[in-house]
Amino acid sequence: MANLDHIRIVMVETTHPGNIGSAARAMHTMGLTQLHLVNPKSFPTYDAYALASGATSILDNAQTHQTLDDAIGNCELVVATSSRARHIPWPCITVREFGEQLKTMPSNPNIAILFGREDRGLTNDELHRCNLHVTIPTNAEYGVLNVAAAVQVICYELRTALLEDALPEHHPHHRNLPTIPWDQPLASQQDVQRMFAHLEKVLTETEFLHPEHPGHVMTRLQRLFLRAQPDSVEINILRGMLTAIEKKLN
Amino acid sequence: MANLDHIRIVMVETTHPGNIGSAARAMHTMGLTQLHLVNPKSFPTYDAYALASGATSILDNAQTHQTLDDAIGNCELVVATSSRARHIPWPCITVREFGEQLKTMPSNPNIAILFGREDRGLTNDELHRCNLHVTIPTNAEYGVLNVAAAVQVICYELRTALLEDALPEHHPHHRNLPTIPWDQPLASQQDVQRMFAHLEKVLTETEFLHPEHPGHVMTRLQRLFLRAQPDSVEINILRGMLTAIEKKLN
Repeated sequence: MANLDHIRIVMVETTHPGNIGSAARAMHTMGLTQLHLVNPKSFPTYDAYALASGATSILDNAQTHQTLDDAIGNCELVVATSSRARHIPWPCITVREFGEQLKTMPSNPNIAILFGREDRGLTNDELHRCNLHVTIPTNAEYGVLNVAAAVQVICYELRTALLEDALPEHHPHHRNLPTIPWDQPLASQQDVQRMFAHLEKVLTETEFLHPEHPGHVMTRLQRLFLRAQPDSVEINILRGMLTAIEKKLN
Repeated sequence: MANLDHIRIVMVETTHPGNIGSAARAMHTMGLTQLHLVNPKSFPTYDAYALASGATSILDNAQTHQTLDDAIGNCELVVATSSRARHIPWPCITVREFGEQLKTMPSNPNIAILFGREDRGLTNDELHRCNLHVTIPTNAEYGVLNVAAAVQVICYELRTALLEDALPEHHPHHRNLPTIPWDQPLASQQDVQRMFAHLEKVLTETEFLHPEHPGHVMTRLQRLFLRAQPDSVEINILRGMLTAIEKKLN
């Protein structure tokens, strides 16, 4: 089962410091502690602390990064929150389904949940870095949650899914679904990205990929592998396979 | 069954106009429309409209009252949101249990959900006016949600309980089955098996696989790809990739 202590909230290029403070408060009310900020417009600020209320410790310990890679490199599961439909469909589940998945997860991975910019959300590149996309079901006529409100709903749902004391007595869901323990730890996001870079290199060398006309091939391959949430042995096999192909080509 | 159209959010003596605007936005994202304000410190204001974002219609139609009685008089069910324990025990359920109750309710009553002051919540007199108290389970060390964040969580939970389209299509054995329409049909089992045979051939040619000591490499690769439930375009890409590698090797 996943654990709240291993889940980080990653806010990408947040513009309004008040939203960072409100998100920290939202996290603290639900028992999440790790806040990571990628290129915030301004942080730390008075506004952030004012809106954090009793959650200043979350802000004190927040980590600021220059790039998304730095914020998620050592995570095994990276999830985007998104309301936009994309031209290449990605595995997409509701936040409640996500909670169910975390509850029945055989290991306890480091998980990053990405929240995009107030005006534009996450870029396609950022979305394509993720294992899956999580949505909060909303009004079809107006579905734009404030970013801190989205953090609140998602942290609430994760707490409800993962903490026994938060479960109602007559909860309809299974609490202890039998699961088979996985034999290997999930691969880190960093190792997965390195495998993608290696794959792209080999596919270019074999002229399957044409740098000037890449098309969506790499995006589709990334989606395929990310969807499977590869473990570390699988990534090692893929890397070994690519190395053997390169060796034979030269 | 209860209906979202018959549920009103009642904010009692709210101090910060921004919280009224944020609550309106939270309601609108979840499809609730009726906002009632009891003695707000100042309303309408610029701050409320700024934070309401696309939910200005909720503010335009908000009703302001001098007393709580005026705001809830014609309701059949009045519910308090509260985190404080009271000296007289009151029927108290979680917001998820409340959603379950509304779902199985034989009639469609007018329902008021009360949200108290930012600093002191609801008075004992106000709490005692309610049929029941609803709580959002929180961190024992810090359980104070911002009032608009509490409106967001409760409206989210009610929408999820009452609207069919918000219900997860959860199946524990299909962890990553996309719930949005996929752009391509899933690959046939036959095509997947052909891809595996092709992969095994290439890996043997590159001497990554040794026919006399195959180990579990192919099994692990099969598990990886099968887990992702590849679509037909993805299988075509993988086949094209393998063909390009073979061509380059010869």
